[in-house]
Amino acid sequence: MEEGQRIILGIDPGTMILGYGVILIDRRKVHFVDMGVVDLRREKDSFAKLNTIFTEVSGIIDRYSPDDVAVEAPFYGKNPQVMLKLGRAQGAAISAAIAHNLPIFEYAPRKVKMAVTGQGGASKEQVALILSRTLRTEFQPKFLDATDALAIAMCHFYQLVNPLADTATSTNWEKFIKAHPDRVK
Amino acid sequence: MEEGQRIILGIDPGTMILGYGVILIDRRKVHFVDMGVVDLRREKDSFAKLNTIFTEVSGIIDRYSPDDVAVEAPFYGKNPQVMLKLGRAQGAAISAAIAHNLPIFEYAPRKVKMAVTGQGGASKEQVALILSRTLRTEFQPKFLDATDALAIAMCHFYQLVNPLADTATSTNWEKFIKAHPDRVK
Repeated sequence: MEEGQRIILGIDPGTMILGYGVILIDRRKVHFVDMGVVDLRREKDSFAKLNTIFTEVSGIIDRYSPDDVAVEAPFYGKNPQVMLKLGRAQGAAISAAIAHNLPIFEYAPRKVKMAVTGQGGASKEQVALILSRTLRTEFQPKFLDATDALAIAMCHFYQLVNPLADTATSTNWEKFIKAHPDRVK
Repeated sequence: MEEGQRIILGIDPGTMILGYGVILIDRRKVHFVDMGVVDLRREKDSFAKLNTIFTEVSGIIDRYSPDDVAVEAPFYGKNPQVMLKLGRAQGAAISAAIAHNLPIFEYAPRKVKMAVTGQGGASKEQVALILSRTLRTEFQPKFLDATDALAIAMCHFYQLVNPLADTATSTNWEKFIKAHPDRVK
């Protein structure tokens, strides 16, 4: 990683709740900046949801001017219709980063948990607890979706600091799945 | 439909090829404006594809200033991973319309074919042939992906002209699927 400051925005684009977390890297030290959730359950249809995702993520990017955007992107699922909706949500969030010419990185959920807690199967509560200690910040339990997004930003930070530690991260999912069929769930 | 001119952009956002078609409605008469394809097969990864989709659709919107954007959106499929990728492609195309504050309408593939040819199971060639007659324009066979997109724009035109003819069209897919479980494949 280059020296100097760097802001990372982590996004967890779900179809019900979108979580985001922002961290600042300053000379290899990491600081908590902000986190929050966007509730999509009130949106009346699929387009209203996508509109809110695109607009809110654009607003978050305008507010924090991140250098990198890291997105949680589950690759697999069983229900094709759920995956289609999730894909649309991901597409809208990623497009907001594209519209701002920002580099995008994606991480599988297991990889994020592994990077933050050392356990690929860690619970949301465990992720929040470890982040709270690492970032020396108290988190309210109601923000568990936001701490998940913060974990994605942290995962990208660990990757930047020590890219050789785990090469499972990739911006190219085909390559990733081919190389690590057992790593993604 | 209101009197006066109206431009409709039809988009068929696939993961390999994105097709688009533009028509002009002038006092209830329809005219062919343009169509084309964007080849996504050369893009090196998923983000490059989404970037090209978002950027190209934005460019097409800037060029033709459509009033409405109609998107072909298959609701069902069997392979969850394929549906996720398709969802991401749809999300990026829809986001370009969102970024331009344009109203978006989506139509299932069967509905598009039905509206244009009278047969939900029509082939691409049949769709192209009928469009060619309706729009009094010759189409090259190599543009079959583009004629599909043109058919989406035409489907939206028919819906505007005669909204009572078939209420299966909806911008709300949950409602649509619930109301017509047999209409979507």
